[in-house]
Amino acid sequence: MHTDRSGLVAALDIGGTKIAGALVDDHGRLVVRAQRPTPAREDAATVMGAVAQVLEELARAAEWPRVLAVGIGSAGPVDASRGTVSPVNVPGWRAFPLVAAVRERAGGLPVVLVGDGVAMTAAEHWQGAARGRANALCMVVSTGVGGGLVLNGRLHTGPTGNAGHIGHISVDLDGDPCPCGARGCVERIASGPNIARRALDTGWRPDPGGDRSAAAVAAAARAGDAAARASFERAAQALAAGIAATATLVEIEVAVIGGGVAGAGDVLFAPLRERLRDYATLSFASGVEVLPARLGSDAGLVGAAAAAAQELGLWTPPTAG
Amino acid sequence: MHTDRSGLVAALDIGGTKIAGALVDDHGRLVVRAQRPTPAREDAATVMGAVAQVLEELARAAEWPRVLAVGIGSAGPVDASRGTVSPVNVPGWRAFPLVAAVRERAGGLPVVLVGDGVAMTAAEHWQGAARGRANALCMVVSTGVGGGLVLNGRLHTGPTGNAGHIGHISVDLDGDPCPCGARGCVERIASGPNIARRALDTGWRPDPGGDRSAAAVAAAARAGDAAARASFERAAQALAAGIAATATLVEIEVAVIGGGVAGAGDVLFAPLRERLRDYATLSFASGVEVLPARLGSDAGLVGAAAAAAQELGLWTPPTAG
Repeated sequence: MHTDRSGLVAALDIGGTKIAGALVDDHGRLVVRAQRPTPAREDAATVMGAVAQVLEELARAAEWPRVLAVGIGSAGPVDASRGTVSPVNVPGWRAFPLVAAVRERAGGLPVVLVGDGVAMTAAEHWQGAARGRANALCMVVSTGVGGGLVLNGRLHTGPTGNAGHIGHISVDLDGDPCPCGARGCVERIASGPNIARRALDTGWRPDPGGDRSAAAVAAAARAGDAAARASFERAAQALAAGIAATATLVEIEVAVIGGGVAGAGDVLFAPLRERLRDYATLSFASGVEVLPARLGSDAGLVGAAAAAAQELGLWTPPTAG
Repeated sequence: MHTDRSGLVAALDIGGTKIAGALVDDHGRLVVRAQRPTPAREDAATVMGAVAQVLEELARAAEWPRVLAVGIGSAGPVDASRGTVSPVNVPGWRAFPLVAAVRERAGGLPVVLVGDGVAMTAAEHWQGAARGRANALCMVVSTGVGGGLVLNGRLHTGPTGNAGHIGHISVDLDGDPCPCGARGCVERIASGPNIARRALDTGWRPDPGGDRSAAAVAAAARAGDAAARASFERAAQALAAGIAATATLVEIEVAVIGGGVAGAGDVLFAPLRERLRDYATLSFASGVEVLPARLGSDAGLVGAAAAAAQELGLWTPPTAG
């Protein structure tokens, strides 16, 4: 069931801003690309229309006959067991039957659906910072906080394709209410918008009309602003508690962090590595490393292809080296 | 590699109070038993001497020639990758090479080591409340809080045999210091001694000279004592946050709770199920069930045998039904 070296996977990366597609080969190369903006405020059929356009553009490529399967990484929540998606930022899609709709437009090819954090994890495990690691957590820290897990050398998707969703574990059980309904979630403390909000609340003063993003907070922290620095330190503390919880629960050896907030570099990673020592205390958890992600914006496409290849046994799955 | 129906596993359950042993068949029956008190304050060789006595007693049984392997469940931390144990309550054993010592005394049979929480999980998955579940967390809430995981229908031990150690994930990142070195760990809030301490601190008044255990707190809560009730509710909140974190990270469908504190029954389970709704909010996590464990004090032996059988492929491993 392995290694048809000429086989391709059609990958879709579905987010609130864009719908990206590519034909991906068994080396993780994107041999054909297509993209449309996500009509995120439109009705379900209009959003699906944009997906269909991406698929049609891919299907016109000379390589299309080599496609063995479709892999989808989607903004969550997803439900791989039902084949549906309900992306928070695409209100027209609620329990939308994406797998069936894509299968119909892709000539009945097998379709594999995972959450976008799981897809990013598959990519980092196959080609990036988690390569050769048998047990890893990969995370995206950006507008939201998502993630995925590699366990025993394989992508661990969970039955619904959402496993590794570290953004919504509570590390502060009496903490601030999170939009998910819980309190003190990692995302509520460590996402980009929450880093910026907390810096502003505690005295960071960006230029009037200037950038108020987490990237601007990072720049201010680097320039010595105390509130900016403290806001990143609090985010680092929450990420450290979440990573330590994951290491304690499933024995990961590395946590890989990507997304816009990871672009803050040492402003994030230095306090994160320091606080991790406070929370990952047990012998089997204390060695967990933290590394920046290596793949950029194509991680969603590469990972959607890798997840489908693993699930269907198309290629030799990435294993610990 | 499956189903030699006449094969047995020699199981050892090593705790701070007793060292129990048994020959276990492929139906989970204990066909021969042996037990010694743990000389927990003695030196390494003396403790090992007690283990050797248990093994010698088992080896004198007529069934011993049918033994295919030895399975050990030990108080942690353990390190299955190195074959060593460092039980907190047995200070003479630090990185003690238990696997090599047992293998030598068991005629070179293969030896599999897991933590006691992992062993209990193997037992509940094989014979108890997690039977037929593909993804489960099993926990012991007692003097400490431990646990283990079943993922994709199989026991997930982790590389060192400690996976599922939910007692030491932080659910209160600014909370009280835990003896492990972190803050706000589930065990620091929800273990029996912490339930009793908190009840006493907030106004519970046991009879002079009377029972001050978590069981006595549970009895007081049932009789309407507000501090006793509140202490169990706080423990339930921490357990709920930890179970929800596990469901969000690895998509479990059920959490099984055993140990002395679970004997409180509805005093614990009612607020736990209620608070779980507050923390397990995402669609794929919100359905997680909470069930009491079914196996009693033999769970450690049955589970040590099951873990060895799975690891070595001796019997058909327990799978989702």
